[in-house]
Amino acid sequence: MSSQLEQFSNNYIPIINQQMLNEIKKLQAPSQLIESMNYSLAAGGKRIRPLLLLATLETFGKDVNKGLDIACALEMVHTYSLIHDDLPSMDDDDFRRGKPTNHKKFGEALAILAGDGLLTYSFQLIAEAEGLTDEQKVKLIALFSKCAGPEGMVGGQVADIEAENRQLNVDELQYIHENKTGRLLSFAAVAGAIIADANEEQINLVKEYAYHIGIAFQIRDDILDVIGKEEDLGKPVGSDFGNEKSTYPALLTLDGAKKALNDHIQMAKQKINKLQMNIDLLEQLATKIEERNH
Amino acid sequence: MSSQLEQFSNNYIPIINQQMLNEIKKLQAPSQLIESMNYSLAAGGKRIRPLLLLATLETFGKDVNKGLDIACALEMVHTYSLIHDDLPSMDDDDFRRGKPTNHKKFGEALAILAGDGLLTYSFQLIAEAEGLTDEQKVKLIALFSKCAGPEGMVGGQVADIEAENRQLNVDELQYIHENKTGRLLSFAAVAGAIIADANEEQINLVKEYAYHIGIAFQIRDDILDVIGKEEDLGKPVGSDFGNEKSTYPALLTLDGAKKALNDHIQMAKQKINKLQMNIDLLEQLATKIEERNH
Repeated sequence: MSSQLEQFSNNYIPIINQQMLNEIKKLQAPSQLIESMNYSLAAGGKRIRPLLLLATLETFGKDVNKGLDIACALEMVHTYSLIHDDLPSMDDDDFRRGKPTNHKKFGEALAILAGDGLLTYSFQLIAEAEGLTDEQKVKLIALFSKCAGPEGMVGGQVADIEAENRQLNVDELQYIHENKTGRLLSFAAVAGAIIADANEEQINLVKEYAYHIGIAFQIRDDILDVIGKEEDLGKPVGSDFGNEKSTYPALLTLDGAKKALNDHIQMAKQKINKLQMNIDLLEQLATKIEERNH
Repeated sequence: MSSQLEQFSNNYIPIINQQMLNEIKKLQAPSQLIESMNYSLAAGGKRIRPLLLLATLETFGKDVNKGLDIACALEMVHTYSLIHDDLPSMDDDDFRRGKPTNHKKFGEALAILAGDGLLTYSFQLIAEAEGLTDEQKVKLIALFSKCAGPEGMVGGQVADIEAENRQLNVDELQYIHENKTGRLLSFAAVAGAIIADANEEQINLVKEYAYHIGIAFQIRDDILDVIGKEEDLGKPVGSDFGNEKSTYPALLTLDGAKKALNDHIQMAKQKINKLQMNIDLLEQLATKIEERNH
């Protein structure tokens, strides 16, 4: 029997994908730009950010469709960040999810502009979203730009680049992940609460839930890297893992990282438990982050 | 005796520069990122976009200070576009206004991220602007993202890249300039009118004024290129100018381009004349664009 989260995901992921495609296709812009933006949006992914936003709305008992425009804007900004991160001057990745990265397919200039286009257009999507008040839109845009900009994701990416080739401590590692990954996850949950007209106390609980699953998400990523390397090598990687780049298992040991992961998931669940609502969806989402295999 | 526009510029350019510096310096972000964003913002320039926004507010008899946050956001987006345009995969420029371009000074990765940071932060500045209603902010953000995004500046830049190494006709050339340069100039003037609570008819007149000075701006740019080349060569460049890249003088002859420039300036002035206000500032701004030497 599939969980409530699986049903929810199976229901909404195709809707999110279709809506993003529709929004991009209707733009009056050069066809190469449309193609390049759409290539990366259509490349798939877990869509965890838009799902978290919509699941929060569902938890508050509101019409999930009211969050679709913002969910699409959020996934577009996540996608822009991947396109720019993959560039030769950044992580220099040739493949993402088994397909050539945007700049391998369209060239660097168009990849940079596709990222710029997705980022800029996401704000238009929020400003023109249907069914939201101007007050909600302004709140969402203020928070979104803060989470995605110099004080959030862009700042995290700069810190990540600066940190290359040197050993970080846990605090430095956490700063990078909180900003590079955590802030958009946090926005997802808080945006759901804002659209649901939640009160300040509820927004704070949702925010703390998102904070903990954000860190858990990254710890799980690092653990999967170690397990992946072990499978590739056919033997445990021992103490030499993570020497090139700081990771949670390298800093905390593999067992320590697994414990930290579980602690953050438990804390996340405790926070939303205080909402005194049916929190099955958000609990299952936390569990999925703890147990995910890719 | 200095004109009203000169006095206005001398008064407000230092205020715009100082406010942008203050906004960037207060950000909680990695110091390298702050430095890189500020480097390009502080590199100078005519500040024509923020001045046009503030001059429109002044024309409507409103408190110019109400437009300062939006004027700064606009100049930040213009600056991000210059940083990304200068990148090796785009125009590959090493110098801008006599100083090394952002990527020559800070490296490509940081230059891309400084651009991303300025673009994202500009929306936060508008969302958090003081003295504006939520309705005004949503209108401004919807228009700004449209003018700067795939249907505006980003689209124009893509078309410009596509057009390299082939001869354009006047319509194609106009599409590029309308989007690459014209749309942000148009936003500047219309934003001033929105902040001034102008009615729809007034907004349309201001928009048409900005449309014509936008095209005039680009024609003047192209004419200055030809005159500059003549001065470098010490003789008229004749019919061989503009062969590498399509320009107005190449398409219309130098005299034809000068006539087109004057026509657009006259049309711009006619439009704002219909506002039936004191339009000295906006008229002088149009004249300055027609006569500027750099």
